[in-house]
Amino acid sequence: MSKRIHNFCAGPCTLPLSVLENAQKELLDFQNSGMSLMEISHRSKIFEPLHEETLALACEILAVPDDFQCLLLPGGASQQFVMTAINLLEDGKTAAFIDSGHWAQKAQSEAARIGETEIAWSGKDKNYRELPTSNDIKISDRARYLHITSNETIGGIQFPKYPEARVPLVIDASSDFYTRPIPWDACDIVYGGAQKNLAPAGIAVVFVRKTLLQDKKTAPKFLLYKTHADSNSLYNTPPTWQIYILNGVLKWMKSLGGVPYFQKFAAEKSQKLYEFIDKSDFYRNEIPSAFRSKTNVVFLTPNAELDTKFWQEAEKEGLSGLKGHRVVGGLRASIYNAMQMESVDALIKFMEKFAQENKA
Amino acid sequence: MSKRIHNFCAGPCTLPLSVLENAQKELLDFQNSGMSLMEISHRSKIFEPLHEETLALACEILAVPDDFQCLLLPGGASQQFVMTAINLLEDGKTAAFIDSGHWAQKAQSEAARIGETEIAWSGKDKNYRELPTSNDIKISDRARYLHITSNETIGGIQFPKYPEARVPLVIDASSDFYTRPIPWDACDIVYGGAQKNLAPAGIAVVFVRKTLLQDKKTAPKFLLYKTHADSNSLYNTPPTWQIYILNGVLKWMKSLGGVPYFQKFAAEKSQKLYEFIDKSDFYRNEIPSAFRSKTNVVFLTPNAELDTKFWQEAEKEGLSGLKGHRVVGGLRASIYNAMQMESVDALIKFMEKFAQENKA
Repeated sequence: MSKRIHNFCAGPCTLPLSVLENAQKELLDFQNSGMSLMEISHRSKIFEPLHEETLALACEILAVPDDFQCLLLPGGASQQFVMTAINLLEDGKTAAFIDSGHWAQKAQSEAARIGETEIAWSGKDKNYRELPTSNDIKISDRARYLHITSNETIGGIQFPKYPEARVPLVIDASSDFYTRPIPWDACDIVYGGAQKNLAPAGIAVVFVRKTLLQDKKTAPKFLLYKTHADSNSLYNTPPTWQIYILNGVLKWMKSLGGVPYFQKFAAEKSQKLYEFIDKSDFYRNEIPSAFRSKTNVVFLTPNAELDTKFWQEAEKEGLSGLKGHRVVGGLRASIYNAMQMESVDALIKFMEKFAQENKA
Repeated sequence: MSKRIHNFCAGPCTLPLSVLENAQKELLDFQNSGMSLMEISHRSKIFEPLHEETLALACEILAVPDDFQCLLLPGGASQQFVMTAINLLEDGKTAAFIDSGHWAQKAQSEAARIGETEIAWSGKDKNYRELPTSNDIKISDRARYLHITSNETIGGIQFPKYPEARVPLVIDASSDFYTRPIPWDACDIVYGGAQKNLAPAGIAVVFVRKTLLQDKKTAPKFLLYKTHADSNSLYNTPPTWQIYILNGVLKWMKSLGGVPYFQKFAAEKSQKLYEFIDKSDFYRNEIPSAFRSKTNVVFLTPNAELDTKFWQEAEKEGLSGLKGHRVVGGLRASIYNAMQMESVDALIKFMEKFAQENKA
């Protein structure tokens, strides 16, 4: 086997090694069943306890109150852009959005095909390098909820604290899920694709306030949260493999100390990188420190040619996935929960070397 | 490791052992990348060739003509019940359905929330044990397409040949995908959840006639086939693990002779079971032979108590998943492509023993 590399991909991304090793060990024979987990019915006595345990752990670790239903749904956040609007947007109401960048815009454009939307604040004038305080947010009387993207994976910005609004929040937490507490009382829905902090791609973890689990005769049944809640996320055949790995990741998180541990760890990892970047006369990060993401650290070298040279050379030295998103260019180190400090240290060491070799 | 059992689950279900063994071997390190396949970006140079190859193999093995687009989409058939109707149902048109049982009804009830539907034929009077010939099917002038469920997993019935209609067919082929040729010229859409013949649960394989890939401003972008076709099934982060296993299963199918091989194999396996059941004075199958499924063999013992005793004792002897679906009861042996003849033989041997021990 080749050496395990430092994987800075934005998602799918690095997963805890112990969870992968266990999956490998059990792949042909789950719990002495004589079957692979992939071959086991989702309605079997073998799978159902795993499913129940996963739902319970997902709630326990994020301190989810009883008035929220946890759903494990196929797909990822893109599907939730649709489902949140279909489930929440009533006639005559609008969905308010914080336009914080790429992912917020994607969420808003889907909602706009389903109902009315409004922009409660936009970071466009600030080149999407800042986020609003509660006072900056303007919401009309017609607003039903305020949608925010907790962390913009591409822009590398993150709400330092969740804003307060006079309507409930709907939070896309895809890229900082389980790295900080959620203000449950202020929320109607919190959702995220799992492929960053939680599991392989192909599943979304969604928390819906139970009072909102309602039928809508004109909406597809499959897209109603009530449908999946009524069947405890087994309405259709779920992505069982993802649930299995999610189970392992949640147990791993719990064993290390849960969200408090990972919140501190994310702060430490990102701070080390930002401090190095800020002290450097070669690298820069143009985001005001208050809005810098703790899970996606974007940075630039003196020019675009060197940016390209950087990620290409890094790749050869076992530091993968550092190319910035094609929409914004530059460089990006995604450092989700399973990213170890030794990988951050390896990145900094490479950055030092690259800067020395490429200074004008 | 415990012995590999005979897995007759209706889905998720048995997968080719060689594919699972390879997945186990590569789990921590895909192609010397130093990463698990689960950790690799869907937009990377490692994943993209696998993705392209999988799409190409999916078309090649099923002899899909160039005027169809292959899509790999999250979820399964339940999501396609929604997407087919959203994409195809124009104002003033209706979707015609063959009511062949449980799954056809589910498909129809979703379409009915999106537009108008009509029943072109119903098996209700025949207790869902028969299927129509082309002449039995009544379609109104308003029909846009005819939806059929190629094989009813729960009822154990299968169209012996696809019906002819004066509107295009939309085929749910979930449970007999890649076990027989598709009449492409007669079809607009052919789709199936992959968790029976093709891959782990969490992905659908969908073939859409390219002329139908159109935008609809009022429909969610994520639910339009055009969106996914324009991005070659990489619009959102796809379930990469399922695509990886699908790739392995398709290669395994091709190596054995593709659809002609599996069509013959499905006929041989099911015939052996039906012949045994028909000769028996203990077991029975109440479906006329023309409509019997080649992938899901349902059967009954003399009474419901013995049915329960049967699957419970079978389970203990390493024959799993033989309990009939809760909607219809009885017993069911699902014998998809990866089911080996030795498992069918083991089942018949157990059936003989059980009959001898439990005859009145």
